[in-house]
Amino acid sequence: MINGEHQRCVMVCQHQSCQVQGAAKVLLAFHMADLPDDTLVMPTGCQGQCSTSPTVRIIPEEIWYCRVQSTDVPLIVEQHLKGGKPVKEKLHPRFHPNC
Amino acid sequence: MINGEHQRCVMVCQHQSCQVQGAAKVLLAFHMADLPDDTLVMPTGCQGQCSTSPTVRIIPEEIWYCRVQSTDVPLIVEQHLKGGKPVKEKLHPRFHPNC
Repeated sequence: MINGEHQRCVMVCQHQSCQVQGAAKVLLAFHMADLPDDTLVMPTGCQGQCSTSPTVRIIPEEIWYCRVQSTDVPLIVEQHLKGGKPVKEKLHPRFHPNC
Repeated sequence: MINGEHQRCVMVCQHQSCQVQGAAKVLLAFHMADLPDDTLVMPTGCQGQCSTSPTVRIIPEEIWYCRVQSTDVPLIVEQHLKGGKPVKEKLHPRFHPNC
């Protein structure tokens, strides 16, 4: 087991709707990014948010992004994963209705 | 980023229904277990399987377990996470209908 206080997993959906909308490129962009050491990137099956794909879910903090494109990844990495401030413009309104 | 070919994340739901059914103990049991180095354990929000809680989802292979108790964790660790063979008796029938 990998231990640590601030570990995160970036779950990048690779199911059908997300794939059609460019999720493979999103996954690749995260894999290519200069991520913090505590951050793991994982492809996943359906996250149930097909209508707002591609979906990126970050656990354990439960930040959900919708309609993510590969061009959004640098900002998510810099501002959120490194800077600790989620990217408001890409937050999924279903999970973050007040943002 | 943590690299590797066979990394896994064990997602242990800690949302309401799962909590009521003992999910905190399940999470603790995974944290206390002698896990393979490539395996990360994460608490998560709702996985949408409240009626068959507690839910444990393993990504990226997308193996879903239902009604998991802390006493099930040693077998999941030994047989599945170490041995590569999912524990048939605990598989969620919604995701694994033919098992």
